[in-house]
Amino acid sequence: MSDKHVYFFGDGKAEGNASMKNLLGGKGANLAEMNLIGVPVPAGFTITTEVCTVYNDKGRDYTVDLIKSEVEAKIKETEEAMNAKFGSKGEAFPLLLSVRSGARVSMPGMMNTVLNLGMNDETVKLVAEKSGNERFAWDSYRRFIQMYGDVVMGVEAEDGKHDPFEIEIDKLKEAKGYELDTEFTPEDLKTLVEKFKKVVHDRTGDDFPTNPWDQLWGAVCAVFDSWNTERAIYYRQMHQIPAEWGTAVNVQAMVYGNMGKNSATGVAFTRDAATGEDIFNGEYLIDAQGEDVVAGVRTPQEITVEGSRRWAKRAGVSEDDRKAKYPSLEEAMPEIYKELDATQQKLEDHYSDMQDLEFTIQDGKLWILQTRNGKRTGSAMVRMAVEMLDQGMIDEKTALLRQEADKLDELLHPVFEKKALESATVITKGLPASPGAATGRVVFFANDAEEWKNRGEEVVLVRQETSPEDLKGMHVANGILTARGGMTSHAAVVARGMGKCCVSGAGDVRVDYEGRTFKVGDRVVKEGDWISLNGSTGEVYEDKVATVNPELSGNFAKIMELAEKYTKMYVRTNADTPHDAQVARDFGAKGIGLCRTEHMFFEGERIIAVREMILAEDEEGRRKALAKLLPMQREDFEGILEAMDGFGVTIRLLDPPLHEFTPNDEASQEEMAKELGVPADVVKSKVESLHEFNPMLGHRGCRLGNTYPEITEMQARAILEAAVNLKKKGKDPRPEIMVPLIGTVEELKLQKEIIDRIANKVFEEKGESIDYLVGTMIEIPRAALTADKVAEVAEFFSFGTNDLTQMTYGYSRDDAGKFLPIYLNKGILKNDPFQVLDQEGVGQLVQMGTEKGRSSNAKLKVGICGEHGGEPSSVKFCGTVNMDYVSCSPFRVPIARLAAAQSAIELDK
Amino acid sequence: MSDKHVYFFGDGKAEGNASMKNLLGGKGANLAEMNLIGVPVPAGFTITTEVCTVYNDKGRDYTVDLIKSEVEAKIKETEEAMNAKFGSKGEAFPLLLSVRSGARVSMPGMMNTVLNLGMNDETVKLVAEKSGNERFAWDSYRRFIQMYGDVVMGVEAEDGKHDPFEIEIDKLKEAKGYELDTEFTPEDLKTLVEKFKKVVHDRTGDDFPTNPWDQLWGAVCAVFDSWNTERAIYYRQMHQIPAEWGTAVNVQAMVYGNMGKNSATGVAFTRDAATGEDIFNGEYLIDAQGEDVVAGVRTPQEITVEGSRRWAKRAGVSEDDRKAKYPSLEEAMPEIYKELDATQQKLEDHYSDMQDLEFTIQDGKLWILQTRNGKRTGSAMVRMAVEMLDQGMIDEKTALLRQEADKLDELLHPVFEKKALESATVITKGLPASPGAATGRVVFFANDAEEWKNRGEEVVLVRQETSPEDLKGMHVANGILTARGGMTSHAAVVARGMGKCCVSGAGDVRVDYEGRTFKVGDRVVKEGDWISLNGSTGEVYEDKVATVNPELSGNFAKIMELAEKYTKMYVRTNADTPHDAQVARDFGAKGIGLCRTEHMFFEGERIIAVREMILAEDEEGRRKALAKLLPMQREDFEGILEAMDGFGVTIRLLDPPLHEFTPNDEASQEEMAKELGVPADVVKSKVESLHEFNPMLGHRGCRLGNTYPEITEMQARAILEAAVNLKKKGKDPRPEIMVPLIGTVEELKLQKEIIDRIANKVFEEKGESIDYLVGTMIEIPRAALTADKVAEVAEFFSFGTNDLTQMTYGYSRDDAGKFLPIYLNKGILKNDPFQVLDQEGVGQLVQMGTEKGRSSNAKLKVGICGEHGGEPSSVKFCGTVNMDYVSCSPFRVPIARLAAAQSAIELDK
Repeated sequence: MSDKHVYFFGDGKAEGNASMKNLLGGKGANLAEMNLIGVPVPAGFTITTEVCTVYNDKGRDYTVDLIKSEVEAKIKETEEAMNAKFGSKGEAFPLLLSVRSGARVSMPGMMNTVLNLGMNDETVKLVAEKSGNERFAWDSYRRFIQMYGDVVMGVEAEDGKHDPFEIEIDKLKEAKGYELDTEFTPEDLKTLVEKFKKVVHDRTGDDFPTNPWDQLWGAVCAVFDSWNTERAIYYRQMHQIPAEWGTAVNVQAMVYGNMGKNSATGVAFTRDAATGEDIFNGEYLIDAQGEDVVAGVRTPQEITVEGSRRWAKRAGVSEDDRKAKYPSLEEAMPEIYKELDATQQKLEDHYSDMQDLEFTIQDGKLWILQTRNGKRTGSAMVRMAVEMLDQGMIDEKTALLRQEADKLDELLHPVFEKKALESATVITKGLPASPGAATGRVVFFANDAEEWKNRGEEVVLVRQETSPEDLKGMHVANGILTARGGMTSHAAVVARGMGKCCVSGAGDVRVDYEGRTFKVGDRVVKEGDWISLNGSTGEVYEDKVATVNPELSGNFAKIMELAEKYTKMYVRTNADTPHDAQVARDFGAKGIGLCRTEHMFFEGERIIAVREMILAEDEEGRRKALAKLLPMQREDFEGILEAMDGFGVTIRLLDPPLHEFTPNDEASQEEMAKELGVPADVVKSKVESLHEFNPMLGHRGCRLGNTYPEITEMQARAILEAAVNLKKKGKDPRPEIMVPLIGTVEELKLQKEIIDRIANKVFEEKGESIDYLVGTMIEIPRAALTADKVAEVAEFFSFGTNDLTQMTYGYSRDDAGKFLPIYLNKGILKNDPFQVLDQEGVGQLVQMGTEKGRSSNAKLKVGICGEHGGEPSSVKFCGTVNMDYVSCSPFRVPIARLAAAQSAIELDK
Repeated sequence: MSDKHVYFFGDGKAEGNASMKNLLGGKGANLAEMNLIGVPVPAGFTITTEVCTVYNDKGRDYTVDLIKSEVEAKIKETEEAMNAKFGSKGEAFPLLLSVRSGARVSMPGMMNTVLNLGMNDETVKLVAEKSGNERFAWDSYRRFIQMYGDVVMGVEAEDGKHDPFEIEIDKLKEAKGYELDTEFTPEDLKTLVEKFKKVVHDRTGDDFPTNPWDQLWGAVCAVFDSWNTERAIYYRQMHQIPAEWGTAVNVQAMVYGNMGKNSATGVAFTRDAATGEDIFNGEYLIDAQGEDVVAGVRTPQEITVEGSRRWAKRAGVSEDDRKAKYPSLEEAMPEIYKELDATQQKLEDHYSDMQDLEFTIQDGKLWILQTRNGKRTGSAMVRMAVEMLDQGMIDEKTALLRQEADKLDELLHPVFEKKALESATVITKGLPASPGAATGRVVFFANDAEEWKNRGEEVVLVRQETSPEDLKGMHVANGILTARGGMTSHAAVVARGMGKCCVSGAGDVRVDYEGRTFKVGDRVVKEGDWISLNGSTGEVYEDKVATVNPELSGNFAKIMELAEKYTKMYVRTNADTPHDAQVARDFGAKGIGLCRTEHMFFEGERIIAVREMILAEDEEGRRKALAKLLPMQREDFEGILEAMDGFGVTIRLLDPPLHEFTPNDEASQEEMAKELGVPADVVKSKVESLHEFNPMLGHRGCRLGNTYPEITEMQARAILEAAVNLKKKGKDPRPEIMVPLIGTVEELKLQKEIIDRIANKVFEEKGESIDYLVGTMIEIPRAALTADKVAEVAEFFSFGTNDLTQMTYGYSRDDAGKFLPIYLNKGILKNDPFQVLDQEGVGQLVQMGTEKGRSSNAKLKVGICGEHGGEPSSVKFCGTVNMDYVSCSPFRVPIARLAAAQSAIELDK
């Protein structure tokens, strides 16, 4: 531990700098840095984090002794810099201080702060006198007592409900007949100060300290103490922050924007946070405190003339009125404005990013209170990065790293017009299942959706929940709303796949299919009524709300170009139709990572043939039914392989259990029996025999192909014939046949034998051959555990992290809704593992599977095709385990491309 | 590779010995060894396994050249030893040879054999002449052509159905009007030889080789070739036998027991294979071939006088008749008998185990053809080991290692009387779900079982399948028969737990509950009819079949004592009642590894309180219902803790999903509503809301305790109050509270906090405290993957390998019956992983979990409580990962104790 414990900053000088975060904490290091680059920051000093450790080890007296003389010296420097006097007896303006915590990393709201320190019965009068604002002085004093009493002296609500200070305030308001705190007169505030002091004495047995030095030591120690409160410890555990780090204490001069017409306060942005445009902008108020700007009681004024004129135009204020009543800072205080403008330039240059800064003008002097990287919209994020890159402020890698993948999503979907939204009425809220904005007329049945769409209507499909039979209806609808189901319900997964807006699990919605209405509380929405959905927030609006479409060229294209340059993984898409494949290709997908053949099984004639196969009593019967499916499947595959010509297309063999293709209710069973010309009993008893207690762990995946090899034969033939046909047309089809749900290498071996046998037959029959791969989905824990064996047979692995998560956690996606919300709420889980890949557990299997697989097969191609393939943190994880590619739904392709590039850059560091 | 390729044996000499298995193969090394210890074995020689490799690399000509002169020399030695001449022209008896494969490890039936080699048109006449048995000579010749034609010359059935040699035989039989082969006269056989030669010529284009040397080289090469047949390769892959090992070839003189009254053949055992008694015994036939002894056409005679007398008594044959018609070998050929007796002694001493030997007496000379360790019954196995130990033949470890754990099971359950079984009629066969024999009158309902039992009837409960509601009925029944469900169905698991005979999944059984009958085909069995079950074989018998009870003292006790001495792991039991705990304790269990509290929830009043809790709308309602359960649970725990006084008792908190406690059919729901005094609708909608798609992956285990902490509170209180009460009575209760279905350490942490809090409360209230542990079941893959974290909180791990297997494989136990049989049949799986722990996959998680757990908590106690805890190979695996204990159902305790001891001994090697 060093001998120096306290670091001064102020007046363009500082003993610390930005690199000293560990010693001075984040805030302290930043305050020092700003001073060094000439930003006018109120002076003060930082007590180091090392002192916190001493405090925890040796206690208060030892610590105060240790740093006392240093603190006294730094107070003196602060007084000089601020031209004020701590505990002034009238010789100067009283120096009032803020005392704040400041750890290495931000722990917002976790530790204590004291403001207005230095106030007592004498200084309050000086402040009143020198500021010419008695009310302000006494209000600051009473706030100080209240805050200090709470934080330092431990005055707490006795019954856990009513703060004793607030009780006094309420009493006085009642006695005076006031509604608002702002009605208090200076005299009232003086009364309150006396009452507050009494509260402190009554509660603690001690007098409120009048000596500013006593106040200061009390506050400093209280900040140190707050490092070890229960909530701070809990927060540290949650975020893995070591207790040894400790917190620094920042003591800084207070400045006030409400000390007359020569004072002001405001916020400013170095660029436009909404559009990204490179213009300085912001708002301010004269003779006001920061909270006044936020509170909205007074109309804030613009900082620049240009901004002010734009505002006036929007608000319908004449130029004369504007100048007179709402002048810009540029006009009202031109010198200060010039200094502020220079400062914002300096800050943006220094931090190489858009800054959001708070400033106060106290009696004609500009002070910067805070600067930080500004929040921004998705499109602003993209524009700023591209322009800063052009301006030479940042390099390409920084431009890429500064993109928040999730925010990019905003750019890929329609959004509601901001103005239209202002007057829209929210009727309920569900889960933001698939982003974007959609508006249309309510229909309740997939058939109706198609029908209405065919006659030119825009529709939103509203369902209790969706099932594979609703696919076509979902496809034609502008959006989907379901009453049940989570973020990974059928509706949600399929909608994301289609890039279609969806709100799922809107629990308040009661669907009445018979009456063709849905209710939310007392509100009834009928078939044909317009509604609008915000799939990014989960909000559901009454009526039609206007939307705007996304713009994907320009800056967005530039960012994607950069991503392409730096990425190591490539991105594929999960697509079951040529259309989806094309959409994804336009977004930059290089192949298909998952084509689910069973989605093709539901349409028209096909489902009949599928059911015929299921009902067949023997292999011969099954083969007969499969022969009907063959040409249809072949056609599907030709379409998809053609859409992805030249890129690999991973086609998964039949995966779901057969009972998914049979109806459950008796009426539909009878219909099915009629269609197939068999007695209804036969259908019923077949459906019963297919019933499973835990279908997720049942007769599905390659277990089907291994019990009914003829299914695999038909599918392999359809794929390979399609590919050969395309090759004959001069195309370059690259099928990769994926065997699902492998748990032992023997399962794969038997399936591969079938596929290779059929391939040889097809090539012989057609007199033409193509290259193809046979691989497997790694989605069963045992497959990952024995991946070295599996890779001796597999030519590629695709991690099916949806199922892998289900089995690694033992959570059924369909049922987890009963406890997942509680688990997230109690902090048992940090994220829904179906949305964000669990790197600790499931990720361990992914890594093990990848490493073991490559250990026995160096040429093994490895990718991921679970939902996680489009989630940024999960994509980055895939980068760390050196996957070849990730695959995601078409509309997530740009996000995955970005995350993949970021992963490569971060790993390269 | 050495210069010596061929090793002679014969006449008390041998160039090889028992240690040369790798070079000479198992059989070759053994033949050499027997010669060395003075056993009269027909002479011959072994061509080494190295030659097989040369053959595979360099082909036939090179190989024959390499070993030709050596083989010729060894043939000479063989001729001398056997006093015969290979290819004799009359100067001596013709030397006939057998040519057999012999790899390092036995590959039964996988490779080729040729017998009677050396026969041709000349030697056949010499054999006929010298043996005085023309028929024998020609029959041997035609057999030789048939075998050689098939194995060496590749004469195969053309259409894959009819062996061309057999066709000739059938033709001749038809022409002659014969029924049996034995009716052929020597002339017929001569005809057949000619026809066979023609078949060979027609099929192969070659003449059948008449030169014995050509025959020999053909046969030797054919044996080498058979190393690489498809079935041999498949077998090697299945058993992980490297192709490089190769096979040796054993060429040995043939001897014949059917060369007149001075010849004989027989089998003998050095001890009694059925009882284990130390008496020499066996059977023989004069002037016969080995197959005659087995065929049962002639009545075999006993070898010893004592055995012969016992036989005569049983068969009702007078002593005079016996002596005249069925004399013992001891009487018929006293000198030979003496030599045989001395030889069997020598062999048993040499191999230190009971031998099963085949011998032939050719013209007054004894030859031993084969000796091997004899198969034996479970009780013989125990008795032999204990007696051999007493006799100083083997040491304690060998005695233990020689116990087959599964065979020990025979000793623990009643079995059918052998005699009674002979006249019993099998009506169907199911799975051998829980071993033992049972007989009783058929009932179809659990209630009836209780009622009938109360009035003194013996019953067998027959069900479509069982559910937890049948528990009491299962308990009182002598046995259980179900039509559905596999080896791990409810009925099977529960029955094994009770040590109760059970046959499950008897698919032919059609239960008609209404008619109170079951059908198998046309046979109808009515309520009240007697049936008998063999739970060890799955057979179901008509009527009452007499049973005998097991005897567990004496030799069995001695083996258990030895197990205790050498074991490192101890054995606990899975028990839910004081009775089961006591049974297990009597079998040597040291504690309970799994006490399932939910089994207690079904009885009487309890289920009402449980359902009340489920229906409760809020925590308060749940607490009210739980308060009713508390005293009952406490009483249960007192009973169990007392029965296991002084040993640890692991009690698992509530595990199954709540819907297991509610009825599914409407009638029962209405009844439940009435009982609880709520509208039927409330029950119905609650049941609906509890429905899960995949209950195995649903809202169960600690997910219940973490959503309804009050359940955990009640159970923790019941356990701890029970323990404190017992301590006050001077007992030594040692509860270990187990939190089920942990996937993340946070789940355990929250549950442990509750348990510890309740413990402190209880100890304070009672003024007494006890030691207890809190740990968890490791049954979710993620728990094993993150076991280091989990062990920071857990004081013990218990591997729940049932669920762990389900999730690691993604197999639902309840549904896997649809594909597991096919998977076992196709060789995708070698064992049912629910019966035999999958060491490769699931075992990897068990090992990882154990190692990671101990890495962060050195004191962690580790055990297993899945069904595998009673399966010998799985128990041994638990030994290799250094578990502290295994836990199994009471009746498997001795088996687990034995396997644990064997594991320790094997690991110690």
